[in-house]
Amino acid sequence: MRYYEDVEIGSTATFGAYDVTAAEIKEFAEQYDPQWFHTNPDRAAAESPYGGLIASGWHTAAMSMRLLVDCLLNEAATVGAKGVDGLRWRRPVQPGDRLSVRATVEEREVDSDQRGTVRLHVETTNRDGEVVFVMVGIVMFARRDT
Amino acid sequence: MRYYEDVEIGSTATFGAYDVTAAEIKEFAEQYDPQWFHTNPDRAAAESPYGGLIASGWHTAAMSMRLLVDCLLNEAATVGAKGVDGLRWRRPVQPGDRLSVRATVEEREVDSDQRGTVRLHVETTNRDGEVVFVMVGIVMFARRDT
Repeated sequence: MRYYEDVEIGSTATFGAYDVTAAEIKEFAEQYDPQWFHTNPDRAAAESPYGGLIASGWHTAAMSMRLLVDCLLNEAATVGAKGVDGLRWRRPVQPGDRLSVRATVEEREVDSDQRGTVRLHVETTNRDGEVVFVMVGIVMFARRDT
Repeated sequence: MRYYEDVEIGSTATFGAYDVTAAEIKEFAEQYDPQWFHTNPDRAAAESPYGGLIASGWHTAAMSMRLLVDCLLNEAATVGAKGVDGLRWRRPVQPGDRLSVRATVEEREVDSDQRGTVRLHVETTNRDGEVVFVMVGIVMFARRDT
């Protein structure tokens, strides 16, 4: 289990993969972001500049979260997130893409005897290593002593 | 259809509702945020300070997006979002909650002959009017003239 004291500024970890499918893009978007370029493959093939469906930005964020939970947060003494800043979608995410996540510790700061806050810069990349999405998580970690 | 020119700084719109269920909290979290306080009702009832399941923060963001799409973006000449800033989860979202969204135009700026950017402050509230989530969307609108 990694505590606040174990988090090293500048350290980087890369993990994944998450395989993106047309069915999941459509399913997520029908529930949460029903815009045609996320839900209608025929219209997207005909009219979208990307030549087909692209994932909702919120879906890309959610897939990135799944990689973070499986590979990082489940082994860390996190006690929730204060928030997330700077979500930017750099490139479209399409069916057949395989996503990975690179997380870098930017800053850390003690909040109290019980916990500290870590700023985690997160980049989501595709199979070609291109960055498709970035965000900065403000994550609270328990301190080891307590 | 609302274009960039129709977006008035300071204008506010409120809409919703989205009914939150335990089944959907669990389903979303099993796919995207499998931490026990989102997925395991028994353990959450016994161990969580909230006395039961709470929604993943990404699920709350996604439910808010659904309200934005249905009530605002589908009637606007939006051409995507540059990004989102300042996601903050203020209170837990739990089964039985009914969410609404209040969107306020903070700023607008012309980007080109074709489009402009609007900063939209979004607050998600529960049945009691308490703010559970905030974010600032940076949304691109087409200009009317083009």
